[in-house]
Amino acid sequence: MSSQETKAKIIKISAELFNTKGYFGTSISDVMKATGLKKGGIYNHFQSKEELALAAFDYAFQQVSKRTLKVLKKKTSAKDRLLAILTNFLSYIDDPPVTGGCPILNTAIESDDAHPALQKKALAAMDSLCNLICRIIAKGIAKGEINPNTNPDEVASIIVCTVEGAIMMSKLYRDPIHLNRAIKHLSQYIETNL
Amino acid sequence: MSSQETKAKIIKISAELFNTKGYFGTSISDVMKATGLKKGGIYNHFQSKEELALAAFDYAFQQVSKRTLKVLKKKTSAKDRLLAILTNFLSYIDDPPVTGGCPILNTAIESDDAHPALQKKALAAMDSLCNLICRIIAKGIAKGEINPNTNPDEVASIIVCTVEGAIMMSKLYRDPIHLNRAIKHLSQYIETNL
Repeated sequence: MSSQETKAKIIKISAELFNTKGYFGTSISDVMKATGLKKGGIYNHFQSKEELALAAFDYAFQQVSKRTLKVLKKKTSAKDRLLAILTNFLSYIDDPPVTGGCPILNTAIESDDAHPALQKKALAAMDSLCNLICRIIAKGIAKGEINPNTNPDEVASIIVCTVEGAIMMSKLYRDPIHLNRAIKHLSQYIETNL
Repeated sequence: MSSQETKAKIIKISAELFNTKGYFGTSISDVMKATGLKKGGIYNHFQSKEELALAAFDYAFQQVSKRTLKVLKKKTSAKDRLLAILTNFLSYIDDPPVTGGCPILNTAIESDDAHPALQKKALAAMDSLCNLICRIIAKGIAKGEINPNTNPDEVASIIVCTVEGAIMMSKLYRDPIHLNRAIKHLSQYIETNL
């Protein structure tokens, strides 16, 4: 395995650990155990646990983004694109982009009062999700598919709050029903309000 | 200070630490520093960090429940009671029942894949919140204040998912706008759908 492949393997495995056990709940010993590498083999690529966690978050967000762009590919109308984003979140329970659920949600909760560098990463990732929804709505308004009185920021806020809260609930209860109800509610909201 | 007062002080201060830095992010050294006690003074009351964390969560949830019951006291109609529960969550940003935001949300996210005993506590607390909402709706249906076709479990799910997701967003962005939008959205949902 080349040095670059080893680095990529450390990042991928760490992203799953951080997304499952959290930043503070994951130790370098956990990373050593999961990767089968010695301490030197990890510190050879990353100066600190923090540097590794920031790289792991970037990787996790890349996986999230890839999955979202994939489901959007075949959808053309603004409402279909919003519904595709919603439906995509259903996979976060049974087959998440990174084991452990939504990395933006998990990192936001853990870092907001405790880790400014990770908080900044979570914020940028959340901005990217909100901006994607805003752009779809703005384009939908321009094309006459969406009510011109719609406030894109407000809708993005409602969608993201509801879906992320529902992922938390469905993971807590180990039952997809909360996410299913949230998606049904948001679909009706999009159909009738936008 | 009596032994019981010392124990109560450790619990209160630890609840704030755990709710801010998380279970894994809080060490016994942090608790020693914040309480001004020596290690023995803490282990005299709690056998382990886990035992302390479970007691701290019980205390945190007590604070949440007290605040909720207080805002419900003056409200009689079912819809007013639901709106009072919603409005109460606004205080979670500027003046939370326990420093660090919503302890049920924070503990749910951190524990779901990583700490079964805390996960069980978070689940019971979330059940209690959902059941309170369900009981208000059922009573409202019985009194003819709420549409009899309303599904209490579904409404409780939508309210809790949206509010908890919005607390996460408003804490991440350090901006109450997301929680304000979520509460406005849910108020309209309650007015028009229930």
